[in-house]
Amino acid sequence: MILSALLTSVGINLGLCLLFFTLYSILRKQPGNYAVYAPRLVAQRKSEQRSDFNLERLIPSAGWIRQAWQPSEQELLMGFGLDTVVAMRIFVFGLRVFTFAGIVGIVILLPINYSGNQLSDDDSDLPDISLDSFSISNVEDGSNWLWVHFCAAYALTGVVCYLLYNEYGYISSKIIDYFYASKPLPHQFTVLVRGIPVSVGDSVSEKVGSFFSEFYPTVYLSHSVVRRTSKLHSLINEVKQLRRKLARLKLNGNASNRHKREGFLGIFGRRVNVIDYYEKKLEDLQEQVRMEQSSLAGKEVPAAFVSFKSRLGAATVLHIQQRINPTVWVTEQAPDHKDIHWVFFSTSFLRRFISYVLVVVACIVITILFLIPVAIVQGLTNLEQLETWLPFLKGILRLAFIRQVITGYLPSLILQLFVSLIPPVMIMLSTHQGYVAYSQIEKSACIKVLFFTMWNIFFANALSGSALYQIDVILDPKNIPRVLAEAVPGQASFFIAYVVTSGWTGVSSELFRLLPLISNYCRRLFCKKDDEHVEVPSTPYHSQIPKILVFELLGLTYFFLAPLILPFILIFYCMGYIVYRNQILNVYMSKYETSGKFWPLVHSSTIFSLVLMHVIAIGLFTLKKLPLASALILPLPILTLLFNEYCKRRFL
Amino acid sequence: MILSALLTSVGINLGLCLLFFTLYSILRKQPGNYAVYAPRLVAQRKSEQRSDFNLERLIPSAGWIRQAWQPSEQELLMGFGLDTVVAMRIFVFGLRVFTFAGIVGIVILLPINYSGNQLSDDDSDLPDISLDSFSISNVEDGSNWLWVHFCAAYALTGVVCYLLYNEYGYISSKIIDYFYASKPLPHQFTVLVRGIPVSVGDSVSEKVGSFFSEFYPTVYLSHSVVRRTSKLHSLINEVKQLRRKLARLKLNGNASNRHKREGFLGIFGRRVNVIDYYEKKLEDLQEQVRMEQSSLAGKEVPAAFVSFKSRLGAATVLHIQQRINPTVWVTEQAPDHKDIHWVFFSTSFLRRFISYVLVVVACIVITILFLIPVAIVQGLTNLEQLETWLPFLKGILRLAFIRQVITGYLPSLILQLFVSLIPPVMIMLSTHQGYVAYSQIEKSACIKVLFFTMWNIFFANALSGSALYQIDVILDPKNIPRVLAEAVPGQASFFIAYVVTSGWTGVSSELFRLLPLISNYCRRLFCKKDDEHVEVPSTPYHSQIPKILVFELLGLTYFFLAPLILPFILIFYCMGYIVYRNQILNVYMSKYETSGKFWPLVHSSTIFSLVLMHVIAIGLFTLKKLPLASALILPLPILTLLFNEYCKRRFL
Repeated sequence: MILSALLTSVGINLGLCLLFFTLYSILRKQPGNYAVYAPRLVAQRKSEQRSDFNLERLIPSAGWIRQAWQPSEQELLMGFGLDTVVAMRIFVFGLRVFTFAGIVGIVILLPINYSGNQLSDDDSDLPDISLDSFSISNVEDGSNWLWVHFCAAYALTGVVCYLLYNEYGYISSKIIDYFYASKPLPHQFTVLVRGIPVSVGDSVSEKVGSFFSEFYPTVYLSHSVVRRTSKLHSLINEVKQLRRKLARLKLNGNASNRHKREGFLGIFGRRVNVIDYYEKKLEDLQEQVRMEQSSLAGKEVPAAFVSFKSRLGAATVLHIQQRINPTVWVTEQAPDHKDIHWVFFSTSFLRRFISYVLVVVACIVITILFLIPVAIVQGLTNLEQLETWLPFLKGILRLAFIRQVITGYLPSLILQLFVSLIPPVMIMLSTHQGYVAYSQIEKSACIKVLFFTMWNIFFANALSGSALYQIDVILDPKNIPRVLAEAVPGQASFFIAYVVTSGWTGVSSELFRLLPLISNYCRRLFCKKDDEHVEVPSTPYHSQIPKILVFELLGLTYFFLAPLILPFILIFYCMGYIVYRNQILNVYMSKYETSGKFWPLVHSSTIFSLVLMHVIAIGLFTLKKLPLASALILPLPILTLLFNEYCKRRFL
Repeated sequence: MILSALLTSVGINLGLCLLFFTLYSILRKQPGNYAVYAPRLVAQRKSEQRSDFNLERLIPSAGWIRQAWQPSEQELLMGFGLDTVVAMRIFVFGLRVFTFAGIVGIVILLPINYSGNQLSDDDSDLPDISLDSFSISNVEDGSNWLWVHFCAAYALTGVVCYLLYNEYGYISSKIIDYFYASKPLPHQFTVLVRGIPVSVGDSVSEKVGSFFSEFYPTVYLSHSVVRRTSKLHSLINEVKQLRRKLARLKLNGNASNRHKREGFLGIFGRRVNVIDYYEKKLEDLQEQVRMEQSSLAGKEVPAAFVSFKSRLGAATVLHIQQRINPTVWVTEQAPDHKDIHWVFFSTSFLRRFISYVLVVVACIVITILFLIPVAIVQGLTNLEQLETWLPFLKGILRLAFIRQVITGYLPSLILQLFVSLIPPVMIMLSTHQGYVAYSQIEKSACIKVLFFTMWNIFFANALSGSALYQIDVILDPKNIPRVLAEAVPGQASFFIAYVVTSGWTGVSSELFRLLPLISNYCRRLFCKKDDEHVEVPSTPYHSQIPKILVFELLGLTYFFLAPLILPFILIFYCMGYIVYRNQILNVYMSKYETSGKFWPLVHSSTIFSLVLMHVIAIGLFTLKKLPLASALILPLPILTLLFNEYCKRRFL
C-alpha cells in the first residue's frame, strides 16, 4: 500500500464517521428516535417528549459530546455501577499507553525507519512512497539504529507494566470503596449450595436446615430450596396473556367480535359468547396454577440459597469445604437476584464437568476452524453459482459495476455476518457451561470472544495461510518468533487500514445504531404502537471489550514494527472514549453488577500483547542480523510474565 | 544386547542381591550393628542388648522378611503415621499395575513380538537372540497384529485409571479416619500469620491481639509472636557445652588436669584452677542469657502464631482473606511444632516471591544442564590426565585390568556421585523457597528430584544427545512423538539392565546400608563411645519416592514397546515392598506427619507416565505405517488428562 492510498482510505472513513456523527446529532433530536438513541432515559422517563417542531431539530450539533464528556468518574460510579467505570478505564488506560507509544513511535522510531535504505525506493515522491518505508523493514540489516528499537521495546514494556500496576491498584481501591459505599445487599449474606446429597423421599429443605443449624448454629439464618417451576411459570404467563386479552375485548365495544365457535380454530362447534368463554378458561387456568403451587414441594432440586446473619458467616461457609467429598455440598457466592440463571441448579458435579469440557472443545474448534466454513460459503456465492441459482439476476449480473460490487463486497459481507454471529454463539456456549449467573456467563463469553478475535483478526491475517498451516505454526514453538517476524511486519498496512475501517467506522456506527434505527422505524410504520414498551439493551461487554482489546494488541505489537499505526489507534481510543460514554449515559443499562470482574481480563490481554511483541522482537532482531539484541530481549518476556504473576498474587 | 548377556547381568545382580540379603541377615544380629540396622528400636530402647555370643548369630536367616511382612496396614498407620502407609501404597499400587501389565505383556504381547519378522535374525539360537526380537520393533510394519498392542494400550490405561481412582479414594478415606482417630492437636487450632504490617516502634504482639480480638472476638484465643532468638540459642548452647565440660572435669579425678593458664590457648597467662575458671565463665554466660532474654521483646518479627478456640475458627481465619491487600496478614496453616523451619518468618511477600522464582530457575538449570558438568569432570579424569596429575600411579595404570576398571567404572562412579548429590541440593534449594515447615520443604524437594530423575534417567538416556539437542526436541512438540518413537524402543535393553542393576541392587543396598555401616564401624573403632547417642535417620521421602516412580515410568512406557521389562519391574516392586517395610519398622522415623500430602505427586507422576506412553504410541504407530491406530490413540491422552482433572476436583 502506498501513502496516498492510505490517505484516501483515511479520508473516506473520516467522511463516513463525520456523516454518522452528523446524522446522529440530528436523528437523536427526533422524538420518534428516542427509543433508539436514549432508551435508557425513556425507560427512566427522563427524556421529555417534546413533539413541537422547531428548526433546531434539523441542525447538527455537538452538544452530545459535551454531555458525554461532563460526568465525572465518581458520578458514573454512583449512577451506573462499577462495571461501567471499569469499561471506561480500558479507554483511559489505552489513551495513556498510546500517548506514550505514539510520541516515541512518531518522534523517534518513524524518522529512523524512514531514513533507512533497505527497501531502496527512496526516489519516489512522498504520496507514492510505500508504507513499508515507515516500517522497521526499511532499516538496514545489522544497523546500529536497531538498538533504538530495542530500547523502545524495553521502555514501552516498563511504562505499560507501570500503568497496569497502577490501574489494577486503582480499580481494586474503587472496588473496595464501592463495596463500602453501597448498602448491604441480601446476596452478600447468602451462599448458594449445590449438590446436596438426598436419598429418594427425603426433603431437601429439612436436610439443608438440619445441616446448617448443626454446623453453623450461631451464624445460620434461613434457607430457601430451589424448585422446578417451569410449568408454573408457563401457566402464569398464560394467565397473564388471557387477562390482557380479556381486558382488550372488554374495552373494544365491537359486538360482532363477541361471539366465536368453541371448536377447532373457532370454525366448528357451538357459538359462544367470547368473554364468557375466556373467563371460564381463565378460571380453569387459575385452578391449575393453585394446584401446581401446592404440589411444588415435591419438585425440589438439590440446591438451596442459605442466608446467614453476617457477611463473615456467609464468607466462612463459602470458603470452607463442607464435606469430605468436595463434589457434594458445593458452596459458591450467591448471585444477585437479577443475575440468576436458573437452568443449571439441578445438574450434578460430573455433568457440569463434562459439559464444561465439551464447551471448551467446541469453542477451540470454532475459533481455529472458523475460516473454513466461511470460505466454503463464500465460494458458493461466486457469480456463476448465483447465476445458476437465481437465473433472473443474469441480466443485472452482466453489468460491470454490479459484478465489481458483488465480487468485492459479498465475501467480506459474508465474513462480517459470520463474525457478528460469534458473540451470540459464545454466549450460548457459555450458557451451557453450568454457570448460575448471567454475569458469569457473560464474562466467560467475553474470554471466548477475545480468544476468537485475537486468533481470527491477528493470527489468521498475519499468518494468512490455511487453518492447518496456522496450527502447524503454533505446534512448532521454536519457530514462532521467526515465522511471526517474517509475516507480521508485512501486514502493517493491512492493519492500519483495519484500524481505520473497522475501528473508526465501527465506533461511529456503534453511535449511529443502524439496525435498531431500522427496526424502530419498521415498528413505528407497521405496529403503530410506539412507546408502549421500550427495551433497554444490556451493556454488551462480551462483544465490545474484545473489540477494544484487539486494537491494543495491534498497537503494542506494531509499536516498533510500524509506528505509523499508533496515531490511528490513538484517534480510535479518543473516539471510543466519547462514544461509549455517550452510549452508557443514554443507551445501555447494566443488568447486573460484577464489581469489576472484567478488569483481570484486560490485564491478561495486555500482558499477552506485550509478550507477543517481545516474541516478534526476538524473531525480528535475528532476521535483521542483530543476534545480540535478540538475546538481550529474552529476559523481557520472562520479566513481564513474572510481573503478571506478582500482580495476580498482589491483587487476587 | 543379546538374551545371554541379559541373563548374565541378571545373574550377577541376583547374586549381589542375595549376598546383600545374607550379609544383612547376619550383620543385623550383631549387637554392635544395632545402631545401623535398628536405630529406631535402639532409640526407643526396644532392642534388647544381648551381647552373649551364640552360633545362631552367624547363620543367615529370613526371619526379618517374616517380621517385615507381618504388621497390618492398620498397625502401620497407628504406629508409624499416615505418610508411611502412603509410601507403602505406592508399592501396592505398582504391584497391582504391573501384575496386570505383566500378564498382558508376557502372555499376549511378547509372543506376538517374537513371532514377527521385521528384524529377520530368527535363525540364531535362543541365547544369541537379540532382545529387540522381543520388542515391538520386530513386528512387521503395517501388520494387523499391531492392533493388539493398540488394544493393550487402551486396556492398560483403563486399568491404571481405575486403580488410581480407587487408590486416591482409599487414601482420602484413610486421611479422614486418621484425622478422626488422632487426638486434637494444638497446630490444628492455630494459624500462622505472616506479613503483619507494623510501623516502627509499634508492638507486633499488641497489633495482632487487637486485630483478632476485633474481627474474631468469639473464636480468638491467644497468640504468640515469633522472635529472633538465634543469639539466645547460641548462648544457651554454649552454656550447655560448658556444663557438660564441667561435669566431666569434676568426674575425672585427675588433679594434673585441673590447672591451666588463662591466656591464649592455655599456654600463656596466670595459672588458675580450671574448675573455678569454667564456673566463673558459666556465670558470665548465664548473666548474658538473662540479659538476652529480657531484651527479646525488641526482637519481634512481623509473624505470629494465633490460636483459636475451635478448629472451625482456625479454618475460617485460614481461608478468608484478612485485608484488601492480600500480601499483608497472610494466613497459612500452622505447622506442627516439630515441623517448623524458623528461617523464613521475617521475609516479606515480595522477597519470598523473588526467592521462589530464583529457586525454580536454578532447579530448571540444574535439571537440564546437569550432564554438562558431569561430562566435563568425567573428561578430566581420563587416564592421561590421571597420569599427569598423579605420576606415582603410572606403574599401576599400565596394568590392563586396572585400566579397564578405571575406564569402565570411573565415569559411572562419578555420575553416581553427582546423582547422589542431587537430593541434598534440591533440599537446599527448597529450603530457600520461603517455606516455614520441613514437610513443605521435603515435598517441594521431592517434586524437584522427581523432575530431575525423570529428565536425566529417562529423557537423557532415551534421546541420548547433547543437552541442547534435548531442549531442541522439547521445543518442537509436533515432532516429539516421532522422535520418542524412534529413540525410545532402541533403549529397551539398556533400561532392562538399568532396572536390574539400579533397581534390584539399589533396593538391596538400601537394606544393607553400606555407608552407615562403615561410619558406625569407624566410630566404634576410633571414638569408643558407642551407644552414647543413636541418631535415627528421618524417612528420606524426597530421595526414595522419585526412585520408585521412575521405575513406574519405565514400566508404563515400555509396556507395549518391550514387555520383557515388566517381570523385572514386578520383582523390583516385590523386593521394594518387603525391604521398605523392614526399613520403616527398624530404621527410619518420620520426623513429622504430612497426612498423605505425597500421594498427589504419585498420582500426577502416573498420569504423566500414561500420557508419555500415549505420545510414544502415536509416534510408533505412525512409524509402523498404521496411521489409523495412531489417530485412534489420540483421544486416550485427552481422556487421561480429563480424568486427572476430574480426580483433582473430586479429591482436592
